[in-house]
Amino acid sequence: MAVAYVQGVARPVPGIRLGTAQAGIKKKDRDDLLIIEADEGAVVAAVFTQNAFCAAPVLVAREHLQAGPRWLLVNSGNANAGTGPRGLRDAQFTCEALAQKVGQRGQKVLPFSTGVIGEYLPVEKIEAALPQALSDLREDHWNQAARAIMTTDTYPKVSSQVVDVAGYPVTVTGISKGAGMIQPNMATMLAFIATDASVEKDVLQALLGDVADRTFNCITVDGDTSTNDACVLMASGKSPLLSPGTPEFDAFFKAVHVVLGDLSEAIVRDGEGATKLIRIQVEGARDREEARMVGKTIAHSPLVKTAFFASDPNWGRILAAVGRAGCEDLVIENVAIWLDEVQIVEAGGRCADYTEEAGARVMAQPEILIRVALGRGEAGETVLTCDFSYDYVRINAEYRT
Amino acid sequence: MAVAYVQGVARPVPGIRLGTAQAGIKKKDRDDLLIIEADEGAVVAAVFTQNAFCAAPVLVAREHLQAGPRWLLVNSGNANAGTGPRGLRDAQFTCEALAQKVGQRGQKVLPFSTGVIGEYLPVEKIEAALPQALSDLREDHWNQAARAIMTTDTYPKVSSQVVDVAGYPVTVTGISKGAGMIQPNMATMLAFIATDASVEKDVLQALLGDVADRTFNCITVDGDTSTNDACVLMASGKSPLLSPGTPEFDAFFKAVHVVLGDLSEAIVRDGEGATKLIRIQVEGARDREEARMVGKTIAHSPLVKTAFFASDPNWGRILAAVGRAGCEDLVIENVAIWLDEVQIVEAGGRCADYTEEAGARVMAQPEILIRVALGRGEAGETVLTCDFSYDYVRINAEYRT
Repeated sequence: MAVAYVQGVARPVPGIRLGTAQAGIKKKDRDDLLIIEADEGAVVAAVFTQNAFCAAPVLVAREHLQAGPRWLLVNSGNANAGTGPRGLRDAQFTCEALAQKVGQRGQKVLPFSTGVIGEYLPVEKIEAALPQALSDLREDHWNQAARAIMTTDTYPKVSSQVVDVAGYPVTVTGISKGAGMIQPNMATMLAFIATDASVEKDVLQALLGDVADRTFNCITVDGDTSTNDACVLMASGKSPLLSPGTPEFDAFFKAVHVVLGDLSEAIVRDGEGATKLIRIQVEGARDREEARMVGKTIAHSPLVKTAFFASDPNWGRILAAVGRAGCEDLVIENVAIWLDEVQIVEAGGRCADYTEEAGARVMAQPEILIRVALGRGEAGETVLTCDFSYDYVRINAEYRT
Repeated sequence: MAVAYVQGVARPVPGIRLGTAQAGIKKKDRDDLLIIEADEGAVVAAVFTQNAFCAAPVLVAREHLQAGPRWLLVNSGNANAGTGPRGLRDAQFTCEALAQKVGQRGQKVLPFSTGVIGEYLPVEKIEAALPQALSDLREDHWNQAARAIMTTDTYPKVSSQVVDVAGYPVTVTGISKGAGMIQPNMATMLAFIATDASVEKDVLQALLGDVADRTFNCITVDGDTSTNDACVLMASGKSPLLSPGTPEFDAFFKAVHVVLGDLSEAIVRDGEGATKLIRIQVEGARDREEARMVGKTIAHSPLVKTAFFASDPNWGRILAAVGRAGCEDLVIENVAIWLDEVQIVEAGGRCADYTEEAGARVMAQPEILIRVALGRGEAGETVLTCDFSYDYVRINAEYRT
């Protein structure tokens, strides 16, 4: 099950090519290998999982990022996580194998793996499929690339924006995969975004960190953080240089924000067992961190999530989640909560005008906004999540059986 | 559904009497009102929910605790939570009503309510039932008291210990209720423990805080914290004075620890939809707080909980939860994990000797020990939780329909 999703149109990015192949890693008759190639001179930024148990490819990619990589090598079907020293060697081997074929050093390749944890990577299968993927490299292969990195995703996730920069059209296109912050026993969230903008490396890294923090770090399906999460932004530099502080850069920033927002929302819509998309907008917080903490506490509450599955406007559960979120010296009399336009809590208690009928009307919708006003400051943040259904339990209980 | 539970034998506590009555608060034909009366000279300690949205009775009980209370007035069926200023007046009114009947001030009464959030307390019904409960006061009414405070609990929860203190038998008896840290939209966990020991008030409060921290604060069903949680320890002082630092006090401490441990474990066994009891023993942590943080991260992971429901020895999920628990500078190569006696993770990866068959054998048991060795220090903590089943979703999705 998934909440309705309209796939974006993927616009090619000058200087960025994608190629896929069938390596037969877990399943036959599907692409499971992806190479993304950037022109010489491209700059690459990346953010990785915060999980201390990060997978072998994450460790290797982090290191290779310093060497100015031009190739991303991605496989689905196997996460190469929890595989110890052999996993590290395997990740490095696949980088070397690709590098040899393009006449470069292994450090020029960033490896990414997604799929089952705890099984060794079938490196021979990957090596054997590299020529097919390399011969397939084209600028307009974003859609098939999005399919190649899917695991239990029910649809490919693509987003694209074109922004006018001083009369020059700059493109930002990205793909993502994931149907839960962490899959059953899979290592999950990957996103690859490319642009033809010209941006200095440090600026690109700062921009990606900032935007990922406002998008991918604000979604949650079940609160679990994968061992393999990664988000990469490549800039091929085919358009004029963009410098921070200019209106052109701001327009570019917004385009990246829209694309990452789309790609992260697509993951929540595809959340395991999801029947509803829930947008939790927290305002009046002391800082953005506090707003996000409150949003995530609501988003992680199994009681809130099951109530949304049941279309039950159970305001007591939302209130209790706000109360335990950890806001220091929270004055409950200043807290107000709305479901879409229906106020359910005022002055820390049930709103006098509120009726169960009005609440039930909102809860019946497939997309719902919870707005929480804390009355403590000016900061806000929006967290996206989905509901918690029988299917979530089924998918996660039966995954390996 | 509940994990098998053997009810303890409730031994009367000299100087402590209990009486119940049918007030008809939510259901007919069941006791839903409880009075606990302590002899003059008793001392009372209590710990309360950390939720900022604490219910009216919690606010009143916290204040009255300073006045040296002798009566506890408990109702089930209605939590008097999210009820604003009127809720506060209602809680105070019931205290005054009981105090008048026993010729005392209202501050001598601590009020407790458990049940549905957001509905006003039917104070007339409670007032009308007070004479019946008062006339019912007896030292051997612990079992019926445990029944009177039940809400969605499937069994009454009682525990008792008698410890020899210099030839004098000192009794510790308690009751608890709750089937989740927070019920559907109910305000949940209550525990009332009494002893005939003689302990100074400050010592009793410190002891309760310490033991509650090692027991009730180490259980979790769904990670939600109720607005009404409270745990009260009354000492009637009928036996000789116990002073900290003596072997007699240590024996008493142990007895209180056993009783609170029993009562908290009984709540997890009765966890909503629970089919398995999971004991998570974390060792080798830098301090107890860190050990508990790791234990709770595992205990709260929906992925771990659904895997236990499915009897799937999914070590990758446990590993990923340890990795995201927030241990600073965690060296994953030092981490080892066992399911009962079966080692599943060594040196941060899958154990070489481990077989799925061995893991599956342990997972089929109704009670399972997860042991996590962090290799960082000497501290440890044990967290109790249960699995996450279809019934959890059903109970919480359908609660109000």
